[in-house]
Amino acid sequence: MSTAKRMDLLGSETAFAVSAEAANLASKGTKIYPFHLGDINLPTPISVIKAAQVAIDNGKTGYCPAPGIPELREALAKDVGSARGLDYGINNVSIQPGGKPSIGKYIAAMMEKGDIVLYPNPGYPIYESQIEFYGGIACPYGYINTPDGLRLDFDTIESGIERGAKHIFYNNYNNPTGASSPDEEIERLAKLVIDNDMFLISDDAYFDTLYDGTPKSIASLPGMYDRTLTMYTFSKKFAMTGWRLGGAIGPENIIEQITRLNVNMESCTTHFIQHAGVAGLNAPKEETQEILNMLRERRNILVTILNDIEGVEAHSPEAGFYVFPQITELMRDIGFTDPEEFRKTVLNETGVSFCGRHHFGRPLENEKELYIRLAFSGIDKEDLTEGMNKLKDWIESRRN
Amino acid sequence: MSTAKRMDLLGSETAFAVSAEAANLASKGTKIYPFHLGDINLPTPISVIKAAQVAIDNGKTGYCPAPGIPELREALAKDVGSARGLDYGINNVSIQPGGKPSIGKYIAAMMEKGDIVLYPNPGYPIYESQIEFYGGIACPYGYINTPDGLRLDFDTIESGIERGAKHIFYNNYNNPTGASSPDEEIERLAKLVIDNDMFLISDDAYFDTLYDGTPKSIASLPGMYDRTLTMYTFSKKFAMTGWRLGGAIGPENIIEQITRLNVNMESCTTHFIQHAGVAGLNAPKEETQEILNMLRERRNILVTILNDIEGVEAHSPEAGFYVFPQITELMRDIGFTDPEEFRKTVLNETGVSFCGRHHFGRPLENEKELYIRLAFSGIDKEDLTEGMNKLKDWIESRRN
Repeated sequence: MSTAKRMDLLGSETAFAVSAEAANLASKGTKIYPFHLGDINLPTPISVIKAAQVAIDNGKTGYCPAPGIPELREALAKDVGSARGLDYGINNVSIQPGGKPSIGKYIAAMMEKGDIVLYPNPGYPIYESQIEFYGGIACPYGYINTPDGLRLDFDTIESGIERGAKHIFYNNYNNPTGASSPDEEIERLAKLVIDNDMFLISDDAYFDTLYDGTPKSIASLPGMYDRTLTMYTFSKKFAMTGWRLGGAIGPENIIEQITRLNVNMESCTTHFIQHAGVAGLNAPKEETQEILNMLRERRNILVTILNDIEGVEAHSPEAGFYVFPQITELMRDIGFTDPEEFRKTVLNETGVSFCGRHHFGRPLENEKELYIRLAFSGIDKEDLTEGMNKLKDWIESRRN
Repeated sequence: MSTAKRMDLLGSETAFAVSAEAANLASKGTKIYPFHLGDINLPTPISVIKAAQVAIDNGKTGYCPAPGIPELREALAKDVGSARGLDYGINNVSIQPGGKPSIGKYIAAMMEKGDIVLYPNPGYPIYESQIEFYGGIACPYGYINTPDGLRLDFDTIESGIERGAKHIFYNNYNNPTGASSPDEEIERLAKLVIDNDMFLISDDAYFDTLYDGTPKSIASLPGMYDRTLTMYTFSKKFAMTGWRLGGAIGPENIIEQITRLNVNMESCTTHFIQHAGVAGLNAPKEETQEILNMLRERRNILVTILNDIEGVEAHSPEAGFYVFPQITELMRDIGFTDPEEFRKTVLNETGVSFCGRHHFGRPLENEKELYIRLAFSGIDKEDLTEGMNKLKDWIESRRN
C-alpha cells in the first residue's frame, strides 16, 4: 500500500528530529546542552496542577462539547479580549489540543486550493507545511537585520500581495527570530491587510511572555477585529507544553468551521485539562511571573555570552525564549559553509544542541546571512552558562 | 471571508447535536433519559486516575515524542498483539488523542483522491465524512437483518469491490448496530480483502467490551497482518472518553505516515495521560471487568423492555453498548413516517433521548426498515428502566 500523493506536500517540524538526535547522543553518555526545543523545564503552576487533579477526581472524564467547556471558552474570551482591548464572547472561541492545531484547521477551513498565503520565513515551519499540504501556495516573507533587531521585510510582503495573497500568518514575538514589531510596523501591516481585503492569522504563542511593558496585538487595530484569528496557547505562559491546550479566537463564522473540524478529528479536547486551563487564567499573576523571571535571567546570560564570541551578533528578544544569533562571519572564519554540518559538528564535539535557520522554512533565494536558533526554555542557567562557555572554547580552538 | 469549498464535503457526528438538543431541554427543567451518546457515566478505574495524578506531580508535563512515549507504545503493542495472537513492536504503534483521529489520518496518509473506500452504513459517521473531505468516493455497505442479529450484506461489499474499492473500514462489534461477525463472516471478508489486494481499517473501539467469550480480530487471519490497521481507543474499556487517548496499530510504513500528521496537527498526545494509559493496560482485570458487569446488566434490562414493546425488535449486542431496535412497524402503527420527527416527538414528550439510524450515515437507497440507536453507557439502570417504561407508556397511549 503506497502513501497518498498529498503526503509529498507535507513538511515537518524538524526541530523534533534534532531532539531525537540529541537524545540519541545522550543515551550514549554525552552530556547534552539542550538549546534545540521550545520546551520548558519549569513546573506548571501549582494552581493549574491542583485544578486538573480535582477535575479528574470530580469525574470530568467524559466527553465535553467539541468547541470546549463553556467556562473555559468564556474565561479565554475575556482574557484574550481584555489583553487586546477587544470584546470576545464564547462563540468567538474554539478550544484546541494545543496552539498548533489552529494552523491546519484555519487553512483547511478557509483557504481555497491555489490561494496564495504569506507566512514568515524564518518562521514556525508548520505554516509552510500546512499551506502546501492543503494545496495552497506558500509565499514566504522575510526579515531585515537592523541594529535594533530583525524587522519585517515589507518588500517581500508587498510582492506577495501583488501576486494576490489572501491570507497572512503573522507571528509577533517571533519563533525562531525573537523579533517583535514596533508600533509603526504593526500599523503598516494592518493597513496592507485592510487595503487588500486580506485575512490575518496572528500566532500569539509568545504574546504573554513579553518581559517588559505591555504586549500589543494587531487584532486591536481599527478594522482588524474582523480580519484576525488569534492563535492562543497555554503552553508557554503556563509551562504546559505537554498538556496540549490552546484555542482559536476570532470571527464566529471561522470559529464555527474550525469546530466542525474538531468534531471530525478529535471529538473534543481533554475534558479535565480544560478546567485546569480555567484555573490558570484565574491564577494569581505571581505564578506565571515566576516563570518569566527565570526565563529573563537565562536570556540575559545567554545573550551576553553570545555577543562575547567574535563573529556572533545576537539581539536580545523582548518576548519568548529564542535567541537567533547571526553567525555568517563566524562560520566562514572557522571553515564552515553548510549550516547543518556546523550544527552537527558542534553537537558531536561539544554536546551543545541547537537548531539552524534551515529548521524554520526553506531559506529564501537571496539570503546571505546565516543564523542559528538557541532556545533557553529547556535548560537551567548553570547548564546554559557551562554549555555556552564550552561552545566559546570550541570556537576559539577552531580559530587557532 | 468565505469558507473553503472543501468544507462542503465535511460531514459531522450528528449524535453530538442530539446531545445539545437534550441538554437544552434539560436546562428548561425536563428530565432527560440520555440514550443518545456513547459516553460513559462510570468512573475511570482508580489505577488510571492515580497514575495520571502521579505523572503530573512527576513533571510529565513537557512535550513527548509525536508517536507517543516508548512505554505506552510498547505496552499497547503487547496488549493489542497478544489479544490478537500477533507480534507488534513499538514501531507499529502511533499514539493518538483518542480513537477517532486515526480515521482521518489514515485517509489523509493512504487514500488517493478519487479512491473508492467501502465503509459500514449504518456506521460511525466520521468514516463517510473523512473519506469525502479528502476527496475519496465513499462507498457504503449495509447489513441484513437476520434472526441472529444484523449481518454484513456481502452483495453491497462485492459491488463496491467490483467498482474498484481499495480500502475498507470494518467495525466489528459495530456502532450503531451492535452487530458482531461470526467466524465465517470475518473469514469471507478477509478473503475478499486479500483476493482484491485491498487494505482494511479495523475499528476495534468495542473489541475489549465483549461481554462473553474471546473477541476476534480480522487482523489475526492469515494474510491480514500486513493489510490491517487497527484503531484502538482507551475510551470505552477504561471509561476514558473525555481523556482522549487511543492509537493506530499496524504496518510500520503507515504508522510512520500517521505520525508525520501528528507532528503537523498536535505535536503529541498529552504527556501525562500516556502514563495513565500504561497503568490502565497493566491494571488488574477486575477494574475493567466491573465496568463491563454494570454495562451487561443495563443491556439485559434494556433489551428485555424493548422487546416487550409491540412492533419493536431488538437484538442483544455481544459487545459495546448500543442496541439498535427495528421500529418499522411501530412507527407506521403510531402514525410516523419521518424518523427524525419520531425522535424529536419522543424527546419532547417523554424526555427519552436517542439517535436515529439517519445519524449514522446517509440511508441507502433500498432501505425499507427503520431503526433507532439506544446507548446504555450513559444512563444508570434505574433511569434506564424508568425511561424505557415512559417510552412504552407513551407508545401505548399513541396506539389508543
